[in-house]
Amino acid sequence: MRFVEVSTKPRRFVHFYPATVVVIGVYAPDGRANFMPAVWHGGLSFDPPLFGVGVSPKRFTHELLTKAAAFSVSMHPYQQARLIQKIGSVSGRQVDKVATFGLELIRGRALKVPILGGAYAAYELEKTDQITTGDHDLFVGRLRGLWEDEEVFAGDAVDPKLAPSLLYYGRYRYGRPQPEILDLEEE
Amino acid sequence: MRFVEVSTKPRRFVHFYPATVVVIGVYAPDGRANFMPAVWHGGLSFDPPLFGVGVSPKRFTHELLTKAAAFSVSMHPYQQARLIQKIGSVSGRQVDKVATFGLELIRGRALKVPILGGAYAAYELEKTDQITTGDHDLFVGRLRGLWEDEEVFAGDAVDPKLAPSLLYYGRYRYGRPQPEILDLEEE
Repeated sequence: MRFVEVSTKPRRFVHFYPATVVVIGVYAPDGRANFMPAVWHGGLSFDPPLFGVGVSPKRFTHELLTKAAAFSVSMHPYQQARLIQKIGSVSGRQVDKVATFGLELIRGRALKVPILGGAYAAYELEKTDQITTGDHDLFVGRLRGLWEDEEVFAGDAVDPKLAPSLLYYGRYRYGRPQPEILDLEEE
Repeated sequence: MRFVEVSTKPRRFVHFYPATVVVIGVYAPDGRANFMPAVWHGGLSFDPPLFGVGVSPKRFTHELLTKAAAFSVSMHPYQQARLIQKIGSVSGRQVDKVATFGLELIRGRALKVPILGGAYAAYELEKTDQITTGDHDLFVGRLRGLWEDEEVFAGDAVDPKLAPSLLYYGRYRYGRPQPEILDLEEE
């Protein structure tokens, strides 16, 4: 392996990719729904159940998340790659994404959040914190409502045979998992 | 999709899996190296380059990270699934993992950190923050040294044909990405 000393910003910072793409859903104060794909995300706590998403202050979604009390995070199959790429390629400041792309929208049941259709799972999250790290903010949400496609969650996590997760490799490049699972429980 | 209202802890909180497994490396005050696989991790900032890992206070690694000034995070191929599962199945409190499993160890060059061998990329991170969220702490590190296998990073992110990332589905279950990339830049 090659070693590089890092003093400022590295040439690339994507060695931990691929990461699954989640879509953040949030209502603007005027009631319009906005969606943004994000790959900087993850679980932060089991009990209470907390999930975090990192969003740059440059993004319109950052402005909406700062104002909102709740947001959604949804998980999508590989088959939606083109749609999700489109959603990420324009700003809600310029475009009403729901109208422009004819997005299917599910209304949250536990919280006032929009959820992008076609997901195999979604979280309705009550915003509990906004933590500035460096050039992104980490928005922390507490799980209040959970949507899951029963069929693909017959086991524990999603079954990649039934719903291949959308993986992101940076720069408009996507992938998906192999359908096989290696189960090491018995070994 | 089925909807479930969540008041306390959900039955499962793994809908955002699969996630790549990273291995956290940290030295104990007595100079011994310890390693722990983690799936709650991600980028937090590009400039400055910050990376975060979520670790439960129950873990020995949490104790070490709390005391340490630096830690490593390394990315591993699917071929190391069995070794990484073993590393995650015992605690450094009971076992010297390096000696027990005969682990190959790379010494950090920018910082005093151990890096698990066999990785296709690794970060040497200076600890800059420890944020308690719920039942986990988020350890934030600033990138000071970067290791990358030049061959698999000829493009931007890792090439899944050359190094299939180790994906985790919870409960000892692992997967890997398909070798093909869908490039939507031209579309």
